[in-house]
Amino acid sequence: MPLTEEQRAEIRAQRGQAATTLRPTVPALEAMLYEPFEVLDHGFLRVIDYMGDDSAVVQAARVSYGRGTRKVSEDAGLIRYLMRHRHSTPFEMCEIKFHVKLPVFVARQWIRHRMASVNEYSARYSILDREFYLPAPEQLAAQSRSNRQGRDAVLAPEVAEQVLGLLRRDADQCFEDYETLLDPEGVGLARELARMNLTLNTYTQWYWKIDLHNLMHFIALRADAHAQYEIRVYADIMRQILKAWVPATADAFEQYRLGAVTFSTAMMEVLRRRLSGEAVEQAGSGLSKREWDEMHAALRLRG
Amino acid sequence: MPLTEEQRAEIRAQRGQAATTLRPTVPALEAMLYEPFEVLDHGFLRVIDYMGDDSAVVQAARVSYGRGTRKVSEDAGLIRYLMRHRHSTPFEMCEIKFHVKLPVFVARQWIRHRMASVNEYSARYSILDREFYLPAPEQLAAQSRSNRQGRDAVLAPEVAEQVLGLLRRDADQCFEDYETLLDPEGVGLARELARMNLTLNTYTQWYWKIDLHNLMHFIALRADAHAQYEIRVYADIMRQILKAWVPATADAFEQYRLGAVTFSTAMMEVLRRRLSGEAVEQAGSGLSKREWDEMHAALRLRG
Amino acid sequence: MPLTEEQRAEIRAQRGQAATTLRPTVPALEAMLYEPFEVLDHGFLRVIDYMGDDSAVVQAARVSYGRGTRKVSEDAGLIRYLMRHRHSTPFEMCEIKFHVKLPVFVARQWIRHRMASVNEYSARYSILDREFYLPAPEQLAAQSRSNRQGRDAVLAPEVAEQVLGLLRRDADQCFEDYETLLDPEGVGLARELARMNLTLNTYTQWYWKIDLHNLMHFIALRADAHAQYEIRVYADIMRQILKAWVPATADAFEQYRLGAVTFSTAMMEVLRRRLSGEAVEQAGSGLSKREWDEMHAALRLRG
Amino acid sequence: MPLTEEQRAEIRAQRGQAATTLRPTVPALEAMLYEPFEVLDHGFLRVIDYMGDDSAVVQAARVSYGRGTRKVSEDAGLIRYLMRHRHSTPFEMCEIKFHVKLPVFVARQWIRHRMASVNEYSARYSILDREFYLPAPEQLAAQSRSNRQGRDAVLAPEVAEQVLGLLRRDADQCFEDYETLLDPEGVGLARELARMNLTLNTYTQWYWKIDLHNLMHFIALRADAHAQYEIRVYADIMRQILKAWVPATADAFEQYRLGAVTFSTAMMEVLRRRLSGEAVEQAGSGLSKREWDEMHAALRLRG
Repeated sequence: MPLTEEQRAEIRAQRGQAATTLRPTVPALEAMLYEPFEVLDHGFLRVIDYMGDDSAVVQAARVSYGRGTRKVSEDAGLIRYLMRHRHSTPFEMCEIKFHVKLPVFVARQWIRHRMASVNEYSARYSILDREFYLPAPEQLAAQSRSNRQGRDAVLAPEVAEQVLGLLRRDADQCFEDYETLLDPEGVGLARELARMNLTLNTYTQWYWKIDLHNLMHFIALRADAHAQYEIRVYADIMRQILKAWVPATADAFEQYRLGAVTFSTAMMEVLRRRLSGEAVEQAGSGLSKREWDEMHAALRLRG
Repeated sequence: MPLTEEQRAEIRAQRGQAATTLRPTVPALEAMLYEPFEVLDHGFLRVIDYMGDDSAVVQAARVSYGRGTRKVSEDAGLIRYLMRHRHSTPFEMCEIKFHVKLPVFVARQWIRHRMASVNEYSARYSILDREFYLPAPEQLAAQSRSNRQGRDAVLAPEVAEQVLGLLRRDADQCFEDYETLLDPEGVGLARELARMNLTLNTYTQWYWKIDLHNLMHFIALRADAHAQYEIRVYADIMRQILKAWVPATADAFEQYRLGAVTFSTAMMEVLRRRLSGEAVEQAGSGLSKREWDEMHAALRLRG
Repeated sequence: MPLTEEQRAEIRAQRGQAATTLRPTVPALEAMLYEPFEVLDHGFLRVIDYMGDDSAVVQAARVSYGRGTRKVSEDAGLIRYLMRHRHSTPFEMCEIKFHVKLPVFVARQWIRHRMASVNEYSARYSILDREFYLPAPEQLAAQSRSNRQGRDAVLAPEVAEQVLGLLRRDADQCFEDYETLLDPEGVGLARELARMNLTLNTYTQWYWKIDLHNLMHFIALRADAHAQYEIRVYADIMRQILKAWVPATADAFEQYRLGAVTFSTAMMEVLRRRLSGEAVEQAGSGLSKREWDEMHAALRLRG
Repeated sequence: MPLTEEQRAEIRAQRGQAATTLRPTVPALEAMLYEPFEVLDHGFLRVIDYMGDDSAVVQAARVSYGRGTRKVSEDAGLIRYLMRHRHSTPFEMCEIKFHVKLPVFVARQWIRHRMASVNEYSARYSILDREFYLPAPEQLAAQSRSNRQGRDAVLAPEVAEQVLGLLRRDADQCFEDYETLLDPEGVGLARELARMNLTLNTYTQWYWKIDLHNLMHFIALRADAHAQYEIRVYADIMRQILKAWVPATADAFEQYRLGAVTFSTAMMEVLRRRLSGEAVEQAGSGLSKREWDEMHAALRLRG
C-alpha cells in the first residue's frame, strides 16, 4: 500500500475543505482531487490542482470576454479543428498538477519532458523510505531480439522467481547499508553521499505541473505501445484523468493523435496506387522492408 | 472606456456563476476575477483564472501530502528562504491567466518573455477595432540625452498638442484606409494583408498565462524604473494583483528582489573599505565613473 | 536592394577571414555564409553561424567518442529512423544563426516560435530606416470566402494599383511624421514613443538562433501552403539552406514530415474498408464533410 | 582512467581532421576540443563543438552586418554593461556542446537545468559499463548538523574505509547481478528491466548542449559553495573553459555574477545606517539572525 494512514488522513482533511470559486470547475475532476491512483507496487499518481476546462481552450482560441453563447457542440467542433490542425497554444491555457510516487529509473525517463515544472523529494535534504519497485512476475520479460529496447516473452516462473530474489536481495542490502551509512550514532555520512548507494528501483516522489498541450504530448509518447511498461502505467492513468477533466479535448486527442497514423511521401504513393486498384509489391514500392511492415501493420493488412 | 456594454454583460454573467471546489482558493483574488483593471487610454488587464496560493508553494517545496499543520509564520519563513536563495521551482507551482488589451508596440516587448503561453486576437482571421493609443500629454517626453533608450523632460504643452495631432491624424487615416482595403463591397483585400497598414499604436489583445516564478521575473524587469512607461503600467497592476493572490510571496519578492541591490566584486571591495572607516575615492576604487554613480545612487549617498 | 554598399563591404570583409578549425564543417554552407538571400522587396535572410552537421546528429544519438567507422549510408538510415519515430533530441544538437530583415507584421508571427533566441534591432534605442513592405501586384489577393485566414484570387490590376497607392501613401506619411517627431532640432520626442506612429509593414531586423529540431518545426509550419505568403518565402529559403547544411536530415524531413500525411482513427477505418474492396460514402464514413474532403485531397482522389 | 585506448584513438583521429571555416573561431578553445578533462574517479567533460565568441555577443547586441571597426576595449565595455544589467539575450547567441561522463546521482541534479539539449546513453538499449563512483577519502564527510543538505567534517580514516568498503561491495554485487540478469545464455532479462538493479553511483554519459547564457546560470548555481561537491567539480572545469572560450564575457561574469552580492531592502537600510556612522545591532536591524550572519559573512566583517 503506497500511503501511510497518516498520509491518508491528511488527504481526507484536504478533501474536507470546500470553498466557493468563480473559476471554471470540473465536478468529475473534483471527485478525484487529492485521491491517489495506485500504480505499480508502491507508486501512485494523484491530482493536486487544475486550472481550466474545455471551455477555457475555446475561450482562449477566440480571445473572448466571457463564456459566450455558443453551443457545446460548436465548442467541440472548434476543439476538433484545433487538434486536427495542430493549433497547440489554446491547449496550453489549461494546467494540471500531480503528486507522483515512482521508481527512480522511471523518474529518469519522465524528467526528459522539459516543458513542465517539478519539485522532487530531496535525498540530499531528507532520508528516503525503504520502498523499491519489484515487478509483478508477469512483467518480467526477456530481452527482445528484434527490438533492442523492447521486451519479449514473459520469463518462466522459476526464472522470474530467481530474478525477483536477486532484485530484492540487492535492494534490501543497499538500503540496509544506506541506513548504516546515515546512522547519526554510527558512521553519520552526509545524506547527499549516502544516497548514492541506493538502487535505481528505489521510489522517489515529486510534484509535477504541466499544461494540457504538453500533457497530451507526454501521454502520446508514454502511453504508446513502445514505451516502457513502468512509465506507461502512469500515462494510462493520465489518459483516464484527461477524459474526466476535458472530455471534448480528450475525445479529439484520441481521434486525431492517439489513433492517428502518419504515412510518409513514399507510403502515400503506395496507398494511392493501391486505392486505384494497382497491386504493389515491396520491391518496387520505394519502401524499406521495415517501413513496408510498419505500413501494413497500421492498415492491419497482410503485406 | 475599454469595454463595450455587451462585454461588461458577459463579464457580469461569468461573475454570476459560482461553484464549489476543493482546490486552494484565494478570496481576495476571487474578488478581482474577470473584472478589468483599466490601463492607458483603451487597455485593460483582467485575471481570468489562477491556480495555487502561498501554501501551494510551500507544499511543493516540502513535497507533502496535505496542507500540514505548520503555522502560517513557518510557511512565510520558508517562502522568504526560497526567495532569498533563488529556489525558483516551488514558485512555478502556481499559475495565473490574464486577458490583456494593449498597444501593438507594447505587445512586441511583452512577447519577448518566452516562458508563458499566449493566444492573440488574430488580424489574419478577424478585423481589428478602431482603437489606438494616444499618450496622455504628461507622458509625452523628450528623448533622453544621457540614456539612448530613455525619456527626459515632458514636452511643452503646445509641442505635445502637435505630437498628439500627428499621432491621431496618422492612426485615423491608416485605419480608414484599412477599412477601405477590407471593404467586401469594394477592394476586398485579404485581412492578412490589409493589417499591414495599421500603426504600431493600434490596440490588440491576448490571453496570457504564466507561472508565478516567471510572473515575478516579468514584474521585476517591467515594473523597473528603466522599463518603458507604457509596459510599466501593466506590470504595476500585476504587482498589486500579486499582493492579493500570494501575500507572503509578494512580501518576500518586494524584500529580496524588487528592493534588493546587487554589488559587483569591485563594489564589495569599496564597501568593505568604507565600512572599516577608510575614505575611498572613485579614482582608486576600481570602478568606472558610471558604476561609481550607480553604487552611490543605490546607497543614496553622495559620491 | 536590401543592403547598402557599406553593409556589403562589411560582409565581404567577414567572408575574407578564414580560419582553421577542428569542428565539423560543411563546405556547402560555408559557401553561403554571411551572404544575403533577398526576400520580398527589402528583406533578406543570411546565415551568420552554424554548429554541427548530419554526423553530429548521429554522434549524439549514439553518444559516441568520435566520428566512428560507420558508412554514410548507415548514418542516413539512422537519421531516417530518428525522423520517422520522432526522436527529436539528436536534432537539437545542431544549431544555426540567421540575420533576418523582415516586415514587423511578419516578425509578429515569427516570434511566436519560442524555442529560439532573438536579438532585435531596437526602435527604443535607435532610429529605423525608411523601408516598408509593398507587396508585388501578383501578391495582392482578395479575402478568401471559404477560409477566414486565407487569400483568394489576385486583385484586378487597377484595384491592385489603388491598394499600393494607399499603402505607400500611408507608410510614407507615417514615416515622415516619425522623423518630424524625432527631429532633435524640433519636437525631439523620445524614440520609444515616436516609433508607435510607424505602420506594421515597416522593416525591422534581428539575429535569430535556433536548433535544427526547432528549425524543422518552423519550416513545417511556415513553409506550409496555409502559412501567409510573406513568412512562407523566408521558410522556403530555410528549406533550401537545410539541404545544403544537413542533406541526410533534409531528405528524411521531406519524406517523413513535409510530404507526410496523418489520418485520424476514423479516416484509417475508411482506408481499411476501401483497401478491402468496400465502397465507402461520406454519409456512413464517420467523417465530417470537411474531413472527407481533406482526406481525398491528401489522396488526390475525387471523393 | 575514464577512457579506453580505443576511445582515445577516436579522439586523436577527430583532432587530426582540420578544416577551413569562415565562422568565428577561438584558438584557445580549439586547443581543448575533444580532449577529456578528467573529473572524479571515472568521469570526464570534453568540449565537442562550439559556436560564437565574445564578438558574436557584441554583434547580436548591435544587430550589425559584420565585425565592425570597434576596438576590443569597446566590445568588452559593452559586454560588461550587458552582464551588469542582466541583458541576457545576446549571450544566448553562443552555444557549446559537451560530452560528459558522470555518476547517475549527479546526472539527476544536472538534468534539472531544462534550458539545454541532452542525449543520454540509453540503458534500455545498451549495456552499461562496470564503472561506479567511489569518493576519495577526503570527500567522505559527515552530515552537517546546521545545514540539512550540507557536509561537515571529513570522516576519520577507519570510518572512511568502512564507508568505501560498503559502497564498493554493494555496487559490485549489484553490477554482478545486473550481468546475471542480462546474460543471454541465462536469465536474459530485458535491459530496460535489468538496469533497475544498479546503484545510483553508476556512471552514465551524455551529450549536453547549452547556450552561453544558460551555461553561466548553470555555473553560477553549481560552482557555488553550497552545491554538492560531485557536481561542483564539473562546474569548476566549465568555468575554466569559459575563460578560454569567451574571455571578456568570463571576466564580466566573475565581476558581476560570481563575485557579486545581493542585499535585501532591509540589509540595504542597515548598510546605509552603517555608512552614515550609526552603530547597528541585530536586534533593531529588521534582519533575522540568519540574515544578519549572511550579511556579515558577505562583508567579511564580524557581526
